[in-house]
Order: sequence, then structure tokens, then C-alpha cells
Amino acid sequence: MPKNRNISMAVIRRLPKYNRCLGDLLEREIYRISSKELSGILGFTASQIRQDLNNFGGFGQQGYGYNVEELHNEIQKILGLTKDYKAVVVGVGNLGQAIANHTNFEKHGFKILAMFDINPNLIGLQIRGTPVYDNKELHGYIKENDVEIGVITTPKEVAQSVADELVEAGIKAIWNFAPVDLKVPEDVVVEDVHLNESLFIMSYLIKEKEMLKALEDQEK
Amino acid sequence: MPKNRNISMAVIRRLPKYNRCLGDLLEREIYRISSKELSGILGFTASQIRQDLNNFGGFGQQGYGYNVEELHNEIQKILGLTKDYKAVVVGVGNLGQAIANHTNFEKHGFKILAMFDINPNLIGLQIRGTPVYDNKELHGYIKENDVEIGVITTPKEVAQSVADELVEAGIKAIWNFAPVDLKVPEDVVVEDVHLNESLFIMSYLIKEKEMLKALEDQEK
Repeated sequence: MPKNRNISMAVIRRLPKYNRCLGDLLEREIYRISSKELSGILGFTASQIRQDLNNFGGFGQQGYGYNVEELHNEIQKILGLTKDYKAVVVGVGNLGQAIANHTNFEKHGFKILAMFDINPNLIGLQIRGTPVYDNKELHGYIKENDVEIGVITTPKEVAQSVADELVEAGIKAIWNFAPVDLKVPEDVVVEDVHLNESLFIMSYLIKEKEMLKALEDQEK
Repeated sequence: MPKNRNISMAVIRRLPKYNRCLGDLLEREIYRISSKELSGILGFTASQIRQDLNNFGGFGQQGYGYNVEELHNEIQKILGLTKDYKAVVVGVGNLGQAIANHTNFEKHGFKILAMFDINPNLIGLQIRGTPVYDNKELHGYIKENDVEIGVITTPKEVAQSVADELVEAGIKAIWNFAPVDLKVPEDVVVEDVHLNESLFIMSYLIKEKEMLKALEDQEK
């Protein structure tokens, strides 16, 4: 149990990075690391790292550093990665299939049981081991199988109505890839992956670097 | 030209949301909107919206609201969306194909010209209109076609070496889907989409809501 329950969301958003870094270290059989070394890998300052990790109890020891395995375990617990989740994907396009077939997610405990679509040409198929069912069966399937996560990879026009169905069926969280802001009750988690937005930010950053470069060239 | 060049990254990260919202309004033929109405759609406070949009010049008028089209055009300009970009995808897995086939990106000016892989079974194929070439041709292809964006959807083990090749060939930006932090020179943009991290945050939020609910139930 972390010593302080009021961990800010900014810290939480950095935890997956710590988790990945510590996992990599364990793979390389490194069991002890200083905040300075972590800083070199992660690009955060050593003091930021000490402050972040302080939130979760006293794993760092003066002159010893962090116990990689203990810290990794604790972060896994905080992130809720010590249990398995059952998920379904709604919307069997390229992206939906890519997500359903991404073996990496299953390795981390996220098991995609089934996909759902309205296209009669897809319904009844098995796509690389994952069955495709009719959207009409979504509600019953979720209830029957205690599915906790719904992944939305539908066109934006139907994303909200799919979200409503998922909520109605008792889903705990929605991983939303449709470019809309879903409205859901307070007790349902929505985590958005808006690829367009990421692309637009990249476009902005390209433009900024070009302008900076042009300015620098002018000054020469 | 925006009136203030020092727009914070926090504001920039909100711009794609404004852009999407204003685009939706234009589709619905709404040409005028107040900050209060925008607040209802976006979920930001009206004062936050006024502050954000103030960065880009005086498009809001007391008693009139914002001119949707003008504001949309200006945000498109700031985001660098008024020009087209040429991109290639390296790593022809499910995710790489999903990105290459995502028509939405092309609509916004991001044209994916080709995909690259090391798998001889894929090289020479056309996947839904996009040719797959040998990784060995990556450097020459980028130079010849003035490709600006490299999308990395390879396994994490090779992502850094692919990034090095892209940089060497003169790419301006990398859209990175591999779960690694790439090291690139200062003048190259990296925009990460770390799906695992998003999934882990979702897992954390599920766990948090469950704990809150358990606490509430206890208090009853």
C-alpha cells in the first residue's frame, strides 16, 4: 500500500515510464540502481525521480540506491497490473484488428476476448484467433463474461452510442480511439488515444523547428 | 501570424481539441459561437477558453462570440495543417498497416507514400495501395521523395536503429509507436504514441475507482 494515497495525476502519468525502465533493467539482470543512473535513462532529473518515488514508500537507500525488483513490483501494484483484465473491441477496422492482435497487451494482463461489428461480412469470422460477433450481442456478452474494458475503434459518428451500450452493460472502462469526447457516468473510466491529435502536435512541432531554423539562418 | 510566439505547450496540446470542435461546428454550419457554448462542448471553463484563444489574436468579440471559420483557419495555421506532409511507415505489422490505411490522416494532409520492412514475404507487396519496400531502400527513398515524417511501428529492439537511419536520411519528424524513448538530434521532432502507457493509466484509474467505491460502500 503506497504511503500517500493522494498521488498527483502528473506523477501517475510518469509511472508507466518507470515501470518500463525497471522492467528493462530486470531483463538485463540489473537489481540495484541509483536515482542518478535512472535519470540518465529516463531523462527526468535525479531529484524529480527521488520525489516521484518517495510517494510510494522508502525504496531508495542512501549509498545503496533503489532495489529494482521491489520498486518494479510496487509500481505494478499501484498501476493495477498485478491482475488480469478482460476486454472486447468494438469496430473491426484496421485499427481494431491491430489492437486485438497486439500480443504485447496480453503479456501485460489485458486479454481481448472478442470483437464486435455491424458488418455481416465480418460477423462469424475468427480474425487471428479472435471471434467477431454481431454488435447486437455486445450487451449479453459483456454481462456473461464479466468484461471490464471496452475498446472503441468505430467511426466517430457511432462512438457515443457504442459507449452508451458498453456503460449500460456494466463495463468499467473504455479505451477510446474515436476522435470524440465521450460522455459517460462518473464511475466509468475513459482513456482516450486520439491519434489525430498526436499527429497535429507533431505537425506543430515540425513547423516550430522550421521557424526556429529560419530565424537562426537569418542571424548568421 | 499569432500575436504571441511564446505559447505554452499546455495550450498547444489543447489546440487539436479546439480544431476538432470548430471543424465539427463548421460541418453543422454553425459560424458563430460564444466561449460559454464552447465550454459546454469542450468541457474547459469559458475563462480558460478565452485565455487560450487570446494567444492567437482577437477573434472573440464582446456580445458576438467567436467567428468559427476564422478561428478554425487560424488554429489550422498554427498547427501547421495548411500544408501537406509526406510520410513512410517502417514496420509492416498490424499497427503499421492500420496507420498506412487510416484514410483520416490523408484527409488532414498526411500522405503515407510507402511502407518498409525486412520480411522478404512482405517486400514487393502492395497493401491496400501502399507499396512495401525493403528497409535497405529506406535511406534512398526518403532522400529522393523528400519524405518529412517517419512512422516507427517496429519491435522495440530495432526502433532506435530505425530512428538513426531516418535521421541520417534527413527526416524532420518521427511518429514513434515503439515503447522506447528515442534519442535523436535536437532538430528532429519525436512524437510518441505509447499504447502500453495509455493502457496502464487506464488500469490505474480502474483500480482507483474500485477503491473509492469500496470506501463509499463501507461508509454506508
